[in-house]
Amino acid sequence: MLPRGRRRALGAATLLLLVVVVVGFFLFGRDPECERRELGRRDGLQAAATLDGDPYGSRNRSTSNLQPLLPPKCELLHVAIVCAGHNSSREVITLVKSVLFYRKNPLHLHLVTDAVARSILETHFRTWMVPAVAIRFYDAEELKAGPLISWIPNKHYSGLYGLMKLVLPSILPLSLARVVVLDTDVTFSSDIAELWALFAHFSDKQVIGLVENQSDWYLGNLWKNHKPWPALGRGFNTGVILLRLDRLRQSGWEQMWKLMAKRELLTLQATSLADQDVFNAVIKEHPELVHPLPCVWNVQLSDHTLAERCYLEAADLKVSGDGRMGDCCSLPILNPCCSSGTQVIHWNSPKKLRVKNKHAEFFRNLHLTFLGYDGKLLRRELFGCPSQLPPEAEQLQQAMAQLDEAEPCFEFRQQQLTVHRVHITFLPHRPPPPRPHDVTLVAQLSMDRLQMLEALCRHWPGPMSLALYLTDAEAQQFLHFVGTSPVLSARKDVAYHVVYREGPLYPVNQLRNVALAQALTSYVFLSDIDFLPAYSLYDYLRASIEQLELSSLKQKVALVVPAFETLHYRFSFPNSKAELLTLLDAGSLHTFRYHEWPQGHAPTDYARWREAQAPYRVQWAADYEPYVVVPRDCPRYDPRFVGFGWNKVAHIIELDAQEYELLVLPEAFSIHLPHAPSLDISRFRSSPTYRDCLQAFKEEFHQDLSRRYGAAALKYLTALQPSQSRA
Amino acid sequence: MLPRGRRRALGAATLLLLVVVVVGFFLFGRDPECERRELGRRDGLQAAATLDGDPYGSRNRSTSNLQPLLPPKCELLHVAIVCAGHNSSREVITLVKSVLFYRKNPLHLHLVTDAVARSILETHFRTWMVPAVAIRFYDAEELKAGPLISWIPNKHYSGLYGLMKLVLPSILPLSLARVVVLDTDVTFSSDIAELWALFAHFSDKQVIGLVENQSDWYLGNLWKNHKPWPALGRGFNTGVILLRLDRLRQSGWEQMWKLMAKRELLTLQATSLADQDVFNAVIKEHPELVHPLPCVWNVQLSDHTLAERCYLEAADLKVSGDGRMGDCCSLPILNPCCSSGTQVIHWNSPKKLRVKNKHAEFFRNLHLTFLGYDGKLLRRELFGCPSQLPPEAEQLQQAMAQLDEAEPCFEFRQQQLTVHRVHITFLPHRPPPPRPHDVTLVAQLSMDRLQMLEALCRHWPGPMSLALYLTDAEAQQFLHFVGTSPVLSARKDVAYHVVYREGPLYPVNQLRNVALAQALTSYVFLSDIDFLPAYSLYDYLRASIEQLELSSLKQKVALVVPAFETLHYRFSFPNSKAELLTLLDAGSLHTFRYHEWPQGHAPTDYARWREAQAPYRVQWAADYEPYVVVPRDCPRYDPRFVGFGWNKVAHIIELDAQEYELLVLPEAFSIHLPHAPSLDISRFRSSPTYRDCLQAFKEEFHQDLSRRYGAAALKYLTALQPSQSRA
Repeated sequence: MLPRGRRRALGAATLLLLVVVVVGFFLFGRDPECERRELGRRDGLQAAATLDGDPYGSRNRSTSNLQPLLPPKCELLHVAIVCAGHNSSREVITLVKSVLFYRKNPLHLHLVTDAVARSILETHFRTWMVPAVAIRFYDAEELKAGPLISWIPNKHYSGLYGLMKLVLPSILPLSLARVVVLDTDVTFSSDIAELWALFAHFSDKQVIGLVENQSDWYLGNLWKNHKPWPALGRGFNTGVILLRLDRLRQSGWEQMWKLMAKRELLTLQATSLADQDVFNAVIKEHPELVHPLPCVWNVQLSDHTLAERCYLEAADLKVSGDGRMGDCCSLPILNPCCSSGTQVIHWNSPKKLRVKNKHAEFFRNLHLTFLGYDGKLLRRELFGCPSQLPPEAEQLQQAMAQLDEAEPCFEFRQQQLTVHRVHITFLPHRPPPPRPHDVTLVAQLSMDRLQMLEALCRHWPGPMSLALYLTDAEAQQFLHFVGTSPVLSARKDVAYHVVYREGPLYPVNQLRNVALAQALTSYVFLSDIDFLPAYSLYDYLRASIEQLELSSLKQKVALVVPAFETLHYRFSFPNSKAELLTLLDAGSLHTFRYHEWPQGHAPTDYARWREAQAPYRVQWAADYEPYVVVPRDCPRYDPRFVGFGWNKVAHIIELDAQEYELLVLPEAFSIHLPHAPSLDISRFRSSPTYRDCLQAFKEEFHQDLSRRYGAAALKYLTALQPSQSRA
Repeated sequence: MLPRGRRRALGAATLLLLVVVVVGFFLFGRDPECERRELGRRDGLQAAATLDGDPYGSRNRSTSNLQPLLPPKCELLHVAIVCAGHNSSREVITLVKSVLFYRKNPLHLHLVTDAVARSILETHFRTWMVPAVAIRFYDAEELKAGPLISWIPNKHYSGLYGLMKLVLPSILPLSLARVVVLDTDVTFSSDIAELWALFAHFSDKQVIGLVENQSDWYLGNLWKNHKPWPALGRGFNTGVILLRLDRLRQSGWEQMWKLMAKRELLTLQATSLADQDVFNAVIKEHPELVHPLPCVWNVQLSDHTLAERCYLEAADLKVSGDGRMGDCCSLPILNPCCSSGTQVIHWNSPKKLRVKNKHAEFFRNLHLTFLGYDGKLLRRELFGCPSQLPPEAEQLQQAMAQLDEAEPCFEFRQQQLTVHRVHITFLPHRPPPPRPHDVTLVAQLSMDRLQMLEALCRHWPGPMSLALYLTDAEAQQFLHFVGTSPVLSARKDVAYHVVYREGPLYPVNQLRNVALAQALTSYVFLSDIDFLPAYSLYDYLRASIEQLELSSLKQKVALVVPAFETLHYRFSFPNSKAELLTLLDAGSLHTFRYHEWPQGHAPTDYARWREAQAPYRVQWAADYEPYVVVPRDCPRYDPRFVGFGWNKVAHIIELDAQEYELLVLPEAFSIHLPHAPSLDISRFRSSPTYRDCLQAFKEEFHQDLSRRYGAAALKYLTALQPSQSRA
């Protein structure tokens, strides 16, 4: 058989070369002057379209052997993804990064999400501001509760969410004719436009593009009494689907699959592989509906996968056993996909990256590329496609453009304007049940403070909202860190919000605002990561809030938690105020920054606190920066303070200006542990520019205060003068 | 004119479609059974070859309009790069990362380097262990001194190194027929095989492939009296060159360019743009030698570049003014390069990434992608090409495969075996002149200790060799950090060696060994990054080495520098031993780890040190881990100790086993500054497995000691027993 195939192939190659000469000749005599030729993919497509009157050229099998025609340059490609929960949301971001890395077309993402995924992804895409990416959300919870799919018994780990792929023709806009449907656990290693281009190979009858299954599941011989749903041969995998929505709607798809599912459910108790079982049952009955896709578009990496046949053969330019590779590689001279071996990797084992596979390392590296890839680098414009930026991004770009690079504080101003990509609740999070006096600890940190988290969990048994300033790669290290810590893994009431690094200065107040905005309890304890609260603080604060009837008071109140510090690495944490006072008297503890910056906490009046039995009121004074408990709707931190200096001071001024009463709690305390000085404080100390810029921002802050609070703000300005020598 | 071009283009497209149908038909009847077809790029090439008897099908202009034929799958592609100095070596790594990211062929890199670049790149590639990459070095310094190019006066910033590209036909192996020559400041955004494939478009006469200049330099109208070298029109840019070495050698290239250069130098004093001036002068005289390449293969980003015309037009599928884009895009349906706009970016302004350009952000992001890209992810095998791994990598892979994943210490053993990619002297480094008693401070750190560097520089005016454990992205942050610090920028005697992160445990002893191996003085002070030496220590150590005549002693000696610690952030560093003793008595200073781990330094005998006027000898005891000054050829650290614990203790045992005499210096001291506990020490404290594994490694270490030192090692084993409870 080999000679025949070889002869044909050689013949084809020769013929092609001949053609090439003719076509080359045709183009040869062109005018050397610059001409605006409209020659190109676009014309190629129009020519194709005229052949069968279909704008995408659904041609017969013989032409489908050609390289897919890429879609026109600025054509919008539609992608649908079903996503629920925290972990899948993380997966979606990695998948989208891989798509964005190779894409050259505008994209419209249709995301069918539960409430958790929606809030994560909405924030993420809003702050990501990638040009030429539109997002629309669809409510998965409504679907889950509604009549469309909830009746289907199902045993797959994806739950009812997997089944939602079946109803996309009903829930996506009627105007949408085509969509690429992706599972959250796939990674692209090529331009999604090449996949989209395969729509052009659909015959008139074909409505669903799928890759064959690369496992023996549907052969039904995996174990004794293994009864899979019916399928054509090995069946098809639904991790990557091309859907002709228009034709599906016309052909009564909804009735078709329901009927089929109901019939099978008479003998089988449930779907095992969710939507995939139903798709395969329908295809078994109506094989004319499916357009088989080249296997490289869904290389399935499970433990006993047959995928190796696909990607090794693709790399070897062979035609695979079932001839399906032919779509991709029978004219490889013309076709770049033949050389890459793999276009989409599908981690379709519950083990995901830990799957055993001879080439797992290779595929893992491709996947890790996008896990660790700096997402901000994907904010790349598409040359020559119109109106790409969301309006906020447009404004931001203008504001950035107006900054003067020669100005000494340029770096600061740039950092102030920077919108960081934010991934809220990066890890699974179960908020505590609503309780009226509950308090969330709010703090922010970067990688070098991770080791504080376990101790913090031991000291604070209540909810926490923490902003982490990380690179994409560090976020993966953080994931590993939490995964290997039993203490952290056990705590589902700690919400971790990743703010992605960008720029040289630590955006401390932006981080605090992210953590604050995500706190879900009525009250928040605004702390810093280097502080450990008294073991009893969480209970004591809730009790105090209740006793003081804060929620019913007209007066706004900020409860002050007095701050101390130890200079010892190893340190026996006091179990009570009495123990703390003993340590203080012994010199093992100090009031916070007593030596370096006493005015920061002096108004707390530690002498009075020693004796106090009841909460007492204190007055604001210049440079006061206590740690406070306030209602969640308190003023936000001023994001102009980046890096070191004045970031909390300004916030306390804001509280005072809004007439918060400062009330020191007699049994509350929190202790700062030693650490090396931060890079920012080192820079502050060594750079006069840094100090000058901070001074400039203080002044601008005071001008803003005067504007907002009028004469009442005068006292802050007056108080400012003597303290200018800070540091 | 437009209609005519358009008509032709449409005609071509229609003809092509017709052909497609015919070819499709030809392939249609194939046997659906699996066949091993040798159809593919390879056959396509052979078919092409038969047309003109040239294995690369040097065809006429009409066929060159087709998409380049990709080279056969496992064909070795040759790349030559001239590289000198520290900064260019960093650039080469980024360039190579971008090439490796997209490549699918084995590569042979021919690196023409000075001694600095050679030692950096040799270490880097040896530890990188990328499959299917061969490296060969050529001595640039020999060339610089030799007769080939040194006679040419030259004003370009690349110095004589740029000119070395002219003599590649002479210095590369005679067996080499083709090579892609790259400047260090280019970034790939596509597969280099596509560039290599353009060799197939050379006519029989053409020997040099070049992209036209995208600046007005050679037009000679940039300023008054601007006298560039002669060139054809705008001339060509030599940042990316395809060289037919075989034909160049045959055609007497060496005589040709020399003659031309000498002629021009009669009127012009020097080359302004190095090799580029000479290449252009030759081409002006012999235009038949040049094969113009599509502009996308060298998008030149300087301040007033015309590159925009190239990449925007490429994105728009237009043919550029001079028709040269035609090579790439006149049959765009077949040609993926037309959609990408850019294949190679050339940062050919002295401003590099800071260049002003409307789309600079876009290109910078592409470049930053590879700057921050984790190099270890490029250790990807090429499916289906034979013998890819260097022998050490092969052995390593086998050793890794033999590890038992279920073993509790698996993670440690994996970390011990890991070979980290190493970039020695990451920043410009000028070693001090050789002095017989000189001492280099040796230490290691990660990102969270960067802020120690300035203080360390103030305390230690001598040479340092520091290993930094960083990700690729962190290495860029580090670069920025040093660049913005006047203290660090001024110090050229500090060598920074980047060891790239891999694995969860800190490879402390591997890092120490890297720093130690790179120390260039006779003696080394083995310190830790959290210690600040006495201001006088550097001078005192050199004087002591001289006075004690260490270099002439038969006995091997380790000088002990007593260690202290402060628990205060702000701390007035003692200027003398007397001041230190005062602070010690006042309780502001302690002997190092006095409270937590006294046995670590007890043998130093601090009581005796107080009074000592002369060096005194001390005896080894269990768990002793002093900071010592030893000859550079001292034993290496044992790399089995990763993470926290016993890493220095084992080294001191090794010194003692090799009969180093421990001599405490009476005026030497060094003080540890406070910092938060490291992640590793936290894990050690909280994980019983961690402690058990450390215990296991201690035992293995002692077994190795007995094997090497016999009965003499018994004392260490005996001493081990009581100290097992460490931590």
